[in-house]
Amino acid sequence: MAIPRLTHEERDAALAELTGWALRDDGLAIVRTFKFADFAEAFGFMTRAAIEAEKADHHPEWFNVYNRVEITLTTHDAGGLSVRDVSLARLIDGFV
Amino acid sequence: MAIPRLTHEERDAALAELTGWALRDDGLAIVRTFKFADFAEAFGFMTRAAIEAEKADHHPEWFNVYNRVEITLTTHDAGGLSVRDVSLARLIDGFV
Repeated sequence: MAIPRLTHEERDAALAELTGWALRDDGLAIVRTFKFADFAEAFGFMTRAAIEAEKADHHPEWFNVYNRVEITLTTHDAGGLSVRDVSLARLIDGFV
Repeated sequence: MAIPRLTHEERDAALAELTGWALRDDGLAIVRTFKFADFAEAFGFMTRAAIEAEKADHHPEWFNVYNRVEITLTTHDAGGLSVRDVSLARLIDGFV
């Protein structure tokens, strides 16, 4: 069963709650950049996020260079944002 | 002390040895894309690479989505490729 895409209202409500996350230009994903003290701290954060992502069977698109981690969340099965992205964003925010 | 940039000859010799890595268009970095069975395997690989990168104090620029990992290696202090990139690439290749 496909995961339903968030309505515009649901999307806006989620973004209002998730401080630090922004809607990607195309409206189909949310993005956030995290900065840490150094690489070890950045990768420690990624490891915690990876474990939660795997448990949720919902994975981020992410880029890392040294202390910076850029995360993009979207739900391919929904063709855009779904509740899965909001849940994962909330979990990830708990790690900073 | 700045790390010396590889000469063109050294760069070509390194690339000939590092199968799977390609020179980035600007000639200042090497790139390789790795594919795994799934996210857990991809992140396991990243974790091994992260530990070696931290030990070498030389870190990758990398992107991951699900089972795919794209790695870019360059040495900012050298303004391009250095022996550090070749060493890290060799170590990373040992994990696949």
